[in-house]
Formats: sequence, structure tokens, C-alpha cells
Amino acid sequence: MMRELPIGVFDSGIGGLTVVRQLRKALPSEDIVYLGDTARVPYGTKSPSTVVRFACEDTQFLLQQNVKAVVVACNTCSAWALPMLEKKFSVPVFGVILPGVRAALERTRNRRIGIIGTSATIRSKAYSNGILARCDTAKVFARPCPLLVPLVEEGWIRHRVTNTVLQEYLQPLVRHRIDTLILGCTHYPLIKGAIRQVAGPGVVLIDSAESCALYVRERLEQMKLVALNRRRAGTIQPFVTDETDRFAEIAAKFLGTATEPPWRVDLTAMTYMSAHK
Amino acid sequence: MMRELPIGVFDSGIGGLTVVRQLRKALPSEDIVYLGDTARVPYGTKSPSTVVRFACEDTQFLLQQNVKAVVVACNTCSAWALPMLEKKFSVPVFGVILPGVRAALERTRNRRIGIIGTSATIRSKAYSNGILARCDTAKVFARPCPLLVPLVEEGWIRHRVTNTVLQEYLQPLVRHRIDTLILGCTHYPLIKGAIRQVAGPGVVLIDSAESCALYVRERLEQMKLVALNRRRAGTIQPFVTDETDRFAEIAAKFLGTATEPPWRVDLTAMTYMSAHK
Repeated sequence: MMRELPIGVFDSGIGGLTVVRQLRKALPSEDIVYLGDTARVPYGTKSPSTVVRFACEDTQFLLQQNVKAVVVACNTCSAWALPMLEKKFSVPVFGVILPGVRAALERTRNRRIGIIGTSATIRSKAYSNGILARCDTAKVFARPCPLLVPLVEEGWIRHRVTNTVLQEYLQPLVRHRIDTLILGCTHYPLIKGAIRQVAGPGVVLIDSAESCALYVRERLEQMKLVALNRRRAGTIQPFVTDETDRFAEIAAKFLGTATEPPWRVDLTAMTYMSAHK
Repeated sequence: MMRELPIGVFDSGIGGLTVVRQLRKALPSEDIVYLGDTARVPYGTKSPSTVVRFACEDTQFLLQQNVKAVVVACNTCSAWALPMLEKKFSVPVFGVILPGVRAALERTRNRRIGIIGTSATIRSKAYSNGILARCDTAKVFARPCPLLVPLVEEGWIRHRVTNTVLQEYLQPLVRHRIDTLILGCTHYPLIKGAIRQVAGPGVVLIDSAESCALYVRERLEQMKLVALNRRRAGTIQPFVTDETDRFAEIAAKFLGTATEPPWRVDLTAMTYMSAHK
């Protein structure tokens, strides 16, 4: 039955596992198929048309794994490719932007909302437009933070450099008296502590991974697509496009739990095959 | 005639233009065809097999542009893919590693040599092995510096964060009393000033882009492949795999001069076509 199929999740790399982590909390018995496009990561520095092309290939791969819904864990893909994916594919496709927007609007009191993300995400204005479309008296202050992903990947989670960089990035937002800050990138939950310290106690942090998982549960329930009567924990099957050797080690950081052994796939070959069958 | 053909240069992105800049100095009237694989940049965080696959596709593209020689401007590709490229393709292929090794060994007095580069370059031990193969009494101290490329790309060339990061990366090398430091990444020449300041006046910096250009001139002269009697400056034709819109602006930083308008190419489609013709 349709509702017993796995949920597909994709991201430009490993960061999307923070979304999987939240999905496990919200929907513990769902099976998950994860695709990380680690051979072409990051997407956040690339152009819109390239991001859209990659996102279509990623989604196509997940559909071949017979998933009942696709979660776009990557903020950059959600920002640029979601409308295209929704139009092109027949399964439900959920992104991280709309849930983050909703959560921010629920939490803000002064309607001054900050957004941080990759250059591509910020350039898209997806968060800003989403907020302004729902609340035209809101003031939005957005800041691309291209160094945060490399800092997280270097493992400098509690490091004076990360603090200095955060000060540089966040102080203009704080000066604009934001009371809510959307963490618009899958990597940022890993430095939530440092972000909280720099932003100050008066700023509510919106973790887009968490909002996304709650939103997916709500929508799957509405669509009667939640797996029924499962007495087991769901499985997590990861696929990556680069080598799998360091996957387990890195995945543990983002996911906090073990997965099935990862498989390596070649999206180029797959796209070619599917185009000619 | 063969010697009148352009030189092909490729890199994972735009950084390789630092090598083009030095080639222009060393061989001002040579035409250059440059390929930056900006859709899949960076290579320095990817696995060896993926780097080799990308490097083969890049080289194949340059050969289709009818080049007389290929310069692998990317340190990561030079480190992992050069032996394969030399075997697989019939034109001369030059990397950045050997020239950097030779220059370091010419300049060092105490034979204590430091190397900085991407994670993939350092993991390959290409520089270390190259040095030790030529001088077995040398001591080599290598350090992956994954944050430097993002810092350069953020434009934080003269910034306290860059200085702090460099201190963290370089102090262990300085403590090992290196007198020579190989800048094993195309981006590093852009922060040479900051590196010099942290490494101190006693450390000679080896710019692998500069060493590479001098090496290419020497080899092309030996092979009688230098263009003859040109009275004009060479042209630079760039190709990129992501969008071309911000190319001119970024290129100016790395190259310091203008190029022909960039063209966008799809290496996937090309590889597919060439595999079936």
C-alpha cells in the first residue's frame, strides 16, 4: 500500500540528515530513503538553473526508489526548485522554506525577522517573499553566511573563529532588532549554541529542519500517507554520489544515530538510462 | 601547425585563473582555453575516484577544443589524477605538484618544508612523496586548510578572521621550523600577504601557480611547442559549467585582466555524446 512506502529525502550533501533526524523524532516508524549528492556538493554557491537541474535529478532518483513523498531537505533547492518539482513530479513534494516561514510568523512578536542561509538561498528571496506574502507588515533582514557551512564541516563548532564570524554576520541583524531568526541552512542547527550566544536571549531561533519535520507529519496525516500500526522503528537507507567511506562518521554528527550501510549511485548514468528506456 | 594551437587549462572552478595569470606572464602570446567546472566545484572535499572521473571529463573537453597541451591548474586534480591523465591522453599534460616540489627543494636551506592545501590534496601525499622521492633527508609538514578557499571566496582577504584562521593552521608548521611553505591551492596566492605575515619573514612562500607556469614554458620550449613569431597578446577563452553571469567580476580578482566572454558547457552531455560517436 502507498502509505507503507518510504519517504524520500534529498540534500546537496550530508547536511540534510539534520532534517532526517527531526523526521525520526516526528515520525519514528517511517522508513526513509536519503540521497546526498556529495559528488556535486555544495549547491548553495551555484546558479539557479544548475540548482534546478540537480534537484530534478535527485528527485527522479528518489522516485525510482518508489517513495510515497519527497522532502527537499536542502534550503537552496527548496528556494529555487520547489515549484518546478511540484509541477514535474506526481508525488507530494515538501520543502523547508514554507514550514520555516510559518514557524517564524507564529513566534515573532515585533514582526522583525532575520534570515541566514547560503548565498543562493538568500539571493532567491524565498524566505522573505514567503513571509511578506503572509504578513505584509513584517520587516525581513536577510544575510548570506557562506562561511558557516565550511566552519561546521571543519568541526569548529565551539571555536573562537566561529564566534567572530557569527558576530560579523549577525550583528547587523541584531542591530535591526530582530526577535526571530530563521536558520535557513541544514548545517546551522549544529552551531545553534554559538548562534544563540551571539544573537542573544531575546531572539527566538527557528530551526528549519524541525519546522519541516512537523510540517511533513501534518501533511502526510492529512493525505492519509502515514504508515499504519508499525511496531518497529523505521529504517534509514542512505545513498550518496561520492564515495561512501567517511559517510558513517560524518552522518553520526548530523543524525545522531546509525543508518543502513550507504550505497553509492551515479546520477548521471541513471539520468541517461531513464531518458532512454 | 601544432605549436600554434592554444594551451588548455582546467580547474574545479575559477581559482585556476591564478595559473592562467602566471602563464600570461611566462608565455604572453600563447592562446589559452580555460575550463572551470563551476557546477561541481569544489573538488578538494571530494573522494579520489570522483576527482579522477571529473578530471578525465575536463581533459576530454579541452582536447575537443583542439589544444596542444593540458595544464591541470587544480592542485587536487594534479595530486590524484595526473598519472591517469598522462596515460589516457596523448597530448602533454602538466600539473602543479611537480613544479612546486622542484621550486621548494631549490629554495629550502634546512630541508624542512611545509605544505598547505585542500583536504584531498594533503590526503594524497602527492607533495610529500614528490619531495621525499627527490630528497630523502627532507622533513615535510603538511596541513589541510579547508577554510581558506571559502574565506577567499567571501572576499575576506584582509580580515582579522582570516588572520586568526591562518594562525591556527600555520603555527604548528612554524613551530616545526619550516623555512619553505608550498601554497598548494590555486586560491592561496590571493592571501599571500596574510600568509607571509603569519608565517614570518624567515619562511619562503612557494606559489604553485608561478612555479607551474615557469615549468610549462620550459617543457613547451623543450618540446618545440611554443607559438612562433606572434606579435599579438594571446587570447583567453573561458568555458564554465555553471552560469556565466558573475564570471567577469570574479575572474578579474584571480586573473587581473579581461578575457573573451565566457561560454557555458554541459560536460555530462558532451561525455555522453563522445562516448557514442
